[in-house]
Amino acid sequence: MVQDVNELAVNTIRALAGDMTRGANSGHPGAPMGCAPMAHVLFTQFLNVNPKNPDFIGRDRFVLSNGHGCALQYILLHLLGYDVSMQDLKNFRQVGSKTPGHPEATDTPGIEVTTGPLGQGISNAVGLAAAEAHLAANYNRPDYPIFNNYTYTILGDGCLQEGVAAEAVSLAGHWKLGKLIALYDANNITIDGNIGNSFTEDVGKRFEAYGWHVLEVQDGNHDLPSIAKAIQEAQAVTDKPTIIKIKTTIGYGSLIENNEKVHGSPLTDEDLVQLKKKFGLNPEEKYQVPPSVYELYAARAKQGQEYENAWTALFEKYAQAYPKEAAEVRRRFAGELPEGWESALPRFTPNDAALATRKSSEVVLNAIANGLIPDFTSGCADLSTSTLNRWKTAVDFQHPSTGLGEYGGQYFRYGVREHGMFAIMNGMAHYGGIIPIGATFLNFLTYGWGSVRLAALSHLGVIYIMTHDSIGLGEDGPTHQPIEILALTRATPNMLTFRPGDANEVAGTWAMALKNRHRPAVFCLSRQPVPNLEGSSLEAVAKGAYVLQDANDAKVVLVGTGSEVCIAVEAAKELAAKGIPARVVSMPCTELYEEQPDDYKQKVFPPNLPIVSVEALGVRGWDRYAHAHVGMKGFGASGPYKDLYKKFNITSEAVTAKAEKAIAHFQKLGYVPQLGVEI
Amino acid sequence: MVQDVNELAVNTIRALAGDMTRGANSGHPGAPMGCAPMAHVLFTQFLNVNPKNPDFIGRDRFVLSNGHGCALQYILLHLLGYDVSMQDLKNFRQVGSKTPGHPEATDTPGIEVTTGPLGQGISNAVGLAAAEAHLAANYNRPDYPIFNNYTYTILGDGCLQEGVAAEAVSLAGHWKLGKLIALYDANNITIDGNIGNSFTEDVGKRFEAYGWHVLEVQDGNHDLPSIAKAIQEAQAVTDKPTIIKIKTTIGYGSLIENNEKVHGSPLTDEDLVQLKKKFGLNPEEKYQVPPSVYELYAARAKQGQEYENAWTALFEKYAQAYPKEAAEVRRRFAGELPEGWESALPRFTPNDAALATRKSSEVVLNAIANGLIPDFTSGCADLSTSTLNRWKTAVDFQHPSTGLGEYGGQYFRYGVREHGMFAIMNGMAHYGGIIPIGATFLNFLTYGWGSVRLAALSHLGVIYIMTHDSIGLGEDGPTHQPIEILALTRATPNMLTFRPGDANEVAGTWAMALKNRHRPAVFCLSRQPVPNLEGSSLEAVAKGAYVLQDANDAKVVLVGTGSEVCIAVEAAKELAAKGIPARVVSMPCTELYEEQPDDYKQKVFPPNLPIVSVEALGVRGWDRYAHAHVGMKGFGASGPYKDLYKKFNITSEAVTAKAEKAIAHFQKLGYVPQLGVEI
Repeated sequence: MVQDVNELAVNTIRALAGDMTRGANSGHPGAPMGCAPMAHVLFTQFLNVNPKNPDFIGRDRFVLSNGHGCALQYILLHLLGYDVSMQDLKNFRQVGSKTPGHPEATDTPGIEVTTGPLGQGISNAVGLAAAEAHLAANYNRPDYPIFNNYTYTILGDGCLQEGVAAEAVSLAGHWKLGKLIALYDANNITIDGNIGNSFTEDVGKRFEAYGWHVLEVQDGNHDLPSIAKAIQEAQAVTDKPTIIKIKTTIGYGSLIENNEKVHGSPLTDEDLVQLKKKFGLNPEEKYQVPPSVYELYAARAKQGQEYENAWTALFEKYAQAYPKEAAEVRRRFAGELPEGWESALPRFTPNDAALATRKSSEVVLNAIANGLIPDFTSGCADLSTSTLNRWKTAVDFQHPSTGLGEYGGQYFRYGVREHGMFAIMNGMAHYGGIIPIGATFLNFLTYGWGSVRLAALSHLGVIYIMTHDSIGLGEDGPTHQPIEILALTRATPNMLTFRPGDANEVAGTWAMALKNRHRPAVFCLSRQPVPNLEGSSLEAVAKGAYVLQDANDAKVVLVGTGSEVCIAVEAAKELAAKGIPARVVSMPCTELYEEQPDDYKQKVFPPNLPIVSVEALGVRGWDRYAHAHVGMKGFGASGPYKDLYKKFNITSEAVTAKAEKAIAHFQKLGYVPQLGVEI
Repeated sequence: MVQDVNELAVNTIRALAGDMTRGANSGHPGAPMGCAPMAHVLFTQFLNVNPKNPDFIGRDRFVLSNGHGCALQYILLHLLGYDVSMQDLKNFRQVGSKTPGHPEATDTPGIEVTTGPLGQGISNAVGLAAAEAHLAANYNRPDYPIFNNYTYTILGDGCLQEGVAAEAVSLAGHWKLGKLIALYDANNITIDGNIGNSFTEDVGKRFEAYGWHVLEVQDGNHDLPSIAKAIQEAQAVTDKPTIIKIKTTIGYGSLIENNEKVHGSPLTDEDLVQLKKKFGLNPEEKYQVPPSVYELYAARAKQGQEYENAWTALFEKYAQAYPKEAAEVRRRFAGELPEGWESALPRFTPNDAALATRKSSEVVLNAIANGLIPDFTSGCADLSTSTLNRWKTAVDFQHPSTGLGEYGGQYFRYGVREHGMFAIMNGMAHYGGIIPIGATFLNFLTYGWGSVRLAALSHLGVIYIMTHDSIGLGEDGPTHQPIEILALTRATPNMLTFRPGDANEVAGTWAMALKNRHRPAVFCLSRQPVPNLEGSSLEAVAKGAYVLQDANDAKVVLVGTGSEVCIAVEAAKELAAKGIPARVVSMPCTELYEEQPDDYKQKVFPPNLPIVSVEALGVRGWDRYAHAHVGMKGFGASGPYKDLYKKFNITSEAVTAKAEKAIAHFQKLGYVPQLGVEI
């Protein structure tokens, strides 16, 4: 029997997935083997990409939301001719390979987003689709559909169980993202066994409730035409995202198909032999790809090249007709900022009124977002009037039929969906050309930490506007007061945590966040007003810490962040009155400080001076920078913020007392240990 | 016109909520005013509680999931006669009051669970209902329905948007928790405005898809009989949880009713005057409660007292008929452990085979869970065969109709729903009599941090079995490898982070977690095997850190945790071979170490000795305990774990080199600074 080349291709993919996991002696063969048919149909009939130029703007986006099945994705990338060689497939899950255990956008050409933690991929896909809709609305012109791509994702039951996905897909329905098409690998099996153990909801009905278009394919193991037909039907519905429930058998072809054991463990050699035999492949040959399969994919890759050529030709004509728009698209996708924004940053003097730093952030945002930087999409988890991350002229991102806004709008109403918001932001950042801003109270950053850490891992320059950043939020109480969060963000690689002390430092925070396009920035902003401080500096934020106010022959250094810098300033005055000169250091970003040369660090914190820190969050982590600490040792409380600072002894008097104690302690000891020394 | 007393009561509640938020000059009047009718009906006709004994076992449970509306709950507690006085209402949101800005179970009699962070309350309610079903199945006997209470919750749109709630309610549907009844305050308004901005899904249809029973009340502002009828209908459906969508007007009665402005800001004095006038109350009087309203609630409280009396009488007869069961119920609800468990803890010697600590944890769990401690409910986010938190004889918690288990089963199949799992565990812990255990990979602890921090804040002795606790998990790669998580857990108040170094320390970890019934414990357990170490001690875990192996005239201390303790041991041997005696300290729990007296601390870490730490996670946080650090400074990578330890230089050779460097550094400096000194 001559096997149809598509069938052969599907079986080749299945066998390769088996070989790769066997070769690595770890990994997940089940999902790739079950999803091979839908992935094959998608990649050979629908997905418009060019393997030779993986990043061309007009490409379709594909996300493997069940990222543990990445052997599948690596195989498809290899077959299609991306820079993923057969040797790379053989190096699956090895140190330094292009084929890590879960797909990483930073590691492998053709991987759009980093997935693996379940629920993230489908939620990123919502962001990718929103980005397309947004840029299309802003840049497309009659006869110039520059932005016109589909976002496809494959996902499994695990993703559908995760809350982050529930949040994101609800928004996708609300936003009517018609070009988002999800292929649901319905194989009835999870790691722990039959899906009936934990997941008996009616998924299709749930998605209909969200406003999605729902389709079903009965035989996802063999029926390639029905898969193709369903994708076509999905494309035809333009005002609803589509989910296609495709019934498959996990580990199809294996002796342990349709069993949870095939989910996450390599097949035996014996199993691989029988599987290849059954599939008409050479049972003895590992990593085999029949020439006809390579040819089929090469033909598709050629179509992809032609697709890019056509897009490029269209864009060139567009650039002639709309040179300003085309230049802006080019600039945005190059990750460059427009000119002039930096000089537009407002500056403040001590004579300016005291402002909450959330408020001065709003002032800065209004100065740069309105007309100067069109790249922002800003949004909030339903606290806009508290987080102040909307500029005056902002328009809502909404489907035009709602009358509430338009797809070109830059303000995203995420609802009370922090995790979904952060995941969607990641998707928009991955799309390119967009600087996503998301806002909520600092304490709720951890509601979406699953996405936030992936932003750091994936080098995404997203901005988190996190207000109500300490016990200073007052009456809302300990359920809302962050204590432990800064220990977390500061311990996270490739992330910048900013806690600006006044309005100039807020402007500097914006500047540094915008200049750091490859790591996320967490802005910690106060609810309560803080004065504009003598000596504060926009530029100095770049150094992470700097001498705000000095004193001749200082005996102690007081270092503060955010709303407590002014407390350090007060304490320095009190100490001066007692004849103890004190230096005040503001430390808006410990991570940037860490990157400074040693001589700068020693200029800020001279050896042999005791250092006292003040920050109205947990003191853990400050051992690195200060000998004595004023801050929180337990959870907060509910009450007016001034009462709380007194209750928890975070006052200038407390800093003064601690400074005197530290001076005495080290005088007695005979030396002051230097901190933060790398041995 | 004579007002019906129920109408008067509802309006009294509304006016009180207005007065309280006006008095505090902060808080949320909108939800209490809108929810007053449903809360009044629930509290005066359905909720079986005794205000004079808020904790009696047989009571119904009530959760205000939209916790920002807590003025409502405080008012109801006051009216019903709980120990919440009128003065407490006047102290709303003040420091030290019983009436904080969001309800805290630790602060106020009658508050079952701490809410405020949205989505938590409804998810806790699922846990409360699951606990009731579980205990009923285990302890009820014919004619003795000891456990037979309803769990009621009021929730708003915000809770319904949160992913944690989606996860939990999907499980509630799967588990067919018929005694869970949710009243959905459908007021069409969120903080950011009309619900149409971000939430257009069909909530009823979504809940039907989850397997819930869905009802609707059209006029939730006035139609008290329809609310009562719906609750009765909900009670009649015993194999599905019920959600009743009750249409209300936020801030009903205010001049700004049905507007987002009434959500989170006090009403004006003028508004309060007109509102009271409209409601037939004295427009000039603040905090007024007409005598007839007090009388109505007093009558209900009397019924509550009678309800408890009847329950107590039943329980006394039950105690005669089933003395063993009754004693066990009493013990469990007293928060005491059964006798004998501690002597059943297994002990290990260096001759025993090397085991992954996840595996030795399984050995310990089998030794104590099976027959000895019936209090456990253990569960996993669909990684049971990896996290090993199921004992051999465990039965699944499932509705009996599924054939997959029974309500009496102790093993919970949470599906891939980490946040929902942690929130449900909190609910079960709040119910009483249960020690919830939840498991996933350590990196995914932060998927549910919103619930985890509430466990710490609420003093819940839940246990998190977090395996795959470092880069040692290997091939799954950086998306799964925790780096920053321990900085977070160790910085969290009232939480214990355990990272045991071998099997004896695992047993000690279990012992300490079980003895700490009022703070959550995070177990960080390895995927890879570790040897049983000479000198390791079950008992010493109680001290947090201890000398595992000493050397005469030690020149350096090597401190490790978890799977890196054995690396420190190896390094000590290498140093000894070089003529440098080294002490090895194992530090399974930094938080317990912090609680030791200074003299113990100085015995473990003698002054004047350099200290080198080794832990295969981020080094941040170790400045407090060690002068030099071996660990991670960035994200991990995908590959076999031994290759990763080499790649990231977390080896005995690296520890040895760092120790020699530290010794040289401090010799040159002339002193060794003491660490962790509190000034």
